[in-house]
Amino acid sequence: MNVSRICSAVKMTGRKQSSTLTGCQKNALVNLCQGPFPWEKMEDGREGIQKTFHFADFNQAFSFMQRTALLAEKIDHHPEWFNVYNVVEVKLTTHDTGGISSKDIEMARRMDEYASAL
Amino acid sequence: MNVSRICSAVKMTGRKQSSTLTGCQKNALVNLCQGPFPWEKMEDGREGIQKTFHFADFNQAFSFMQRTALLAEKIDHHPEWFNVYNVVEVKLTTHDTGGISSKDIEMARRMDEYASAL
Amino acid sequence: MNVSRICSAVKMTGRKQSSTLTGCQKNALVNLCQGPFPWEKMEDGREGIQKTFHFADFNQAFSFMQRTALLAEKIDHHPEWFNVYNVVEVKLTTHDTGGISSKDIEMARRMDEYASAL
Amino acid sequence: MNVSRICSAVKMTGRKQSSTLTGCQKNALVNLCQGPFPWEKMEDGREGIQKTFHFADFNQAFSFMQRTALLAEKIDHHPEWFNVYNVVEVKLTTHDTGGISSKDIEMARRMDEYASAL
Repeated sequence: MNVSRICSAVKMTGRKQSSTLTGCQKNALVNLCQGPFPWEKMEDGREGIQKTFHFADFNQAFSFMQRTALLAEKIDHHPEWFNVYNVVEVKLTTHDTGGISSKDIEMARRMDEYASAL
Repeated sequence: MNVSRICSAVKMTGRKQSSTLTGCQKNALVNLCQGPFPWEKMEDGREGIQKTFHFADFNQAFSFMQRTALLAEKIDHHPEWFNVYNVVEVKLTTHDTGGISSKDIEMARRMDEYASAL
Repeated sequence: MNVSRICSAVKMTGRKQSSTLTGCQKNALVNLCQGPFPWEKMEDGREGIQKTFHFADFNQAFSFMQRTALLAEKIDHHPEWFNVYNVVEVKLTTHDTGGISSKDIEMARRMDEYASAL
Repeated sequence: MNVSRICSAVKMTGRKQSSTLTGCQKNALVNLCQGPFPWEKMEDGREGIQKTFHFADFNQAFSFMQRTALLAEKIDHHPEWFNVYNVVEVKLTTHDTGGISSKDIEMARRMDEYASAL
């Protein structure tokens, strides 16, 4: 468990998002930033989370993107993502509020679920 | 185990496909037509196999189709399929030869793999 | 212009859907059932519309399905469709009401738009 | 017409790719790097070409990616790409040879075709 990461997430949660995230959502965010394969604070200084997914091949990687795309249209919230062959780098933030919203948390959880199913 | 199904498959294999399927491929075909969730002989009289897949929702069903579509273009072999919401009905046959080819067997195995991963 | 088709559509509109479709939507439905490449009344007796799309190849056909899938999740309304290689047969009806709803009309119009763009 | 861009492309073509690209392919590459909406030399110093595509919305952008994905599996050649909502940034290079190959040229031409159809 990377404590500094959690701390970043917690701080992030505590500051800008305090007005929009419920206690339950903050817990969900902390959970996303823990574990063996955690989401991390965005490196580019924005308030958001990022994660790099590795798959067996392009078929798996693009199928992961496809499932996420269907979700994105459903909840009207879209990731920033980069793909080359079996790798997908994802960044989640809510442009409207300039921070993390409940939609980012839902999307992060579902992406973890989609990736683990492949 | 549905013996008549297996028999249909074996007969099918023994007759028309004898010239094109190897012994190993015949075994693979028999395996596809066994088990708790088997492929079956096409009901419309053509030489081919069919199976109906049930998923949790449209997201899963279409993602299954998406993975199969990528495979289809890769091996240049395409299924006949019907979808409504969470259900996908698949028929596999090789139009050129009017029977089952090694590509049908590969596709059936991969579709089973894709479905079980969801 | 196939008058009997229009009549079917108009009758269809006039009867069961009269309570749910506005005048504007009825006009849209009539438009869908006119022209050189019209939607038709479902052949299986249900209240709905159907159309068969022909594309250049599987790439085009599946891309058409992909765009429609994204729309389907967005508006939470899903087609019944059959695909083999470059052909996509579509049936649209609203299961909840057992007839045509405004979502069917929106989906039909967008599918025509997607197909004509390919 | 941006002459320096063409020159970059031509130089690029003339040097490393001279052994692998035919005269016809070099012409195709020059054409890709001309016109009102050209491919450009990769900014990161690698031998390759890049282009940023803008679409109306995510539906169009992801459908463009979907068509390209089907092509990618078919010809076993995959782009590097970044997407956020309606924007897709594409980089094409052939990792094996460290330069531009005929597959990059084919992919660039088809991506232009797919984008212009939307």
